[in-house]
Amino acid sequence: MSDEIKRVDTALQALISKAKTLMMSIPSETESLSEIGVSPFIQHEGHLYIYASHLSAHIRQLQGSTKAVFMIIADESKSQNIWARHRLKFQANVIEIMRDDPRFDVACDRIKDAHGPVMDLIRNFADFHLFEITPETGVFVSGFGAAFSVSGADFAVGAKLRSS
Amino acid sequence: MSDEIKRVDTALQALISKAKTLMMSIPSETESLSEIGVSPFIQHEGHLYIYASHLSAHIRQLQGSTKAVFMIIADESKSQNIWARHRLKFQANVIEIMRDDPRFDVACDRIKDAHGPVMDLIRNFADFHLFEITPETGVFVSGFGAAFSVSGADFAVGAKLRSS
Repeated sequence: MSDEIKRVDTALQALISKAKTLMMSIPSETESLSEIGVSPFIQHEGHLYIYASHLSAHIRQLQGSTKAVFMIIADESKSQNIWARHRLKFQANVIEIMRDDPRFDVACDRIKDAHGPVMDLIRNFADFHLFEITPETGVFVSGFGAAFSVSGADFAVGAKLRSS
Repeated sequence: MSDEIKRVDTALQALISKAKTLMMSIPSETESLSEIGVSPFIQHEGHLYIYASHLSAHIRQLQGSTKAVFMIIADESKSQNIWARHRLKFQANVIEIMRDDPRFDVACDRIKDAHGPVMDLIRNFADFHLFEITPETGVFVSGFGAAFSVSGADFAVGAKLRSS
């Protein structure tokens, strides 16, 4: 691993470990526009998990999808250069984890640990759903004109890219 | 205007005036997934403007679109409740402003004022494009379970909604 890739990997892992939420983009029902949304997430054993309500259009669309596009992005106030906010965009497989699946309670407990007691309130709300997100490929932007391919559930840093 | 709507309007205007960037979601070429991206923006005379490179897939898609979906969202570190980050999602008309249009230099000057000298570097890059964004309708989330419709280029706050 080159020194540059090591530096990029360190910045990427810092972004993921500090971030509390992810953005998602999903084709809409009408197909002429697409949906956007945000949700708290956790990382656990090679997957990401979100727990969100189908009252939001992007979550209804996610329920009917097997893949979606996500972004984890550093806060504006933590970004030295607003034109180059550190951000990780990736395509991932998505499945809904049902309430009778053993993974449901494990993930919900970890979401509560990470994101606080709101989880106690919403855990039994029937409009909320747990999704398991398995990253496939993506791009990490670590600076102005500095974009790198990433792959796999652990976001292994690959080649430097010309575009993002 | 009710006291609740006044409070919501104040929170919304604070979000927009502090935010430096917006997110966008745009159908992709393949249609099975969609694109996501982020860009610095300015607000000027009833429009938002962004200046971004077509080396990013979401910008290439934006060039072929007349409408898109955007989100302006408060930083995680400024959000008291991570489940309820203040966020404004909206659908907008989009047009590209060409370099020979008088609006091009006006908007680029204001982007430089707002976002610094990187603009001097990228202003003459042929892969960058200026887009004028005119908001139509949207939703402002100002708390957990608190979503309000907004309309028009000045994001006038309307009815409280059940979903976001």
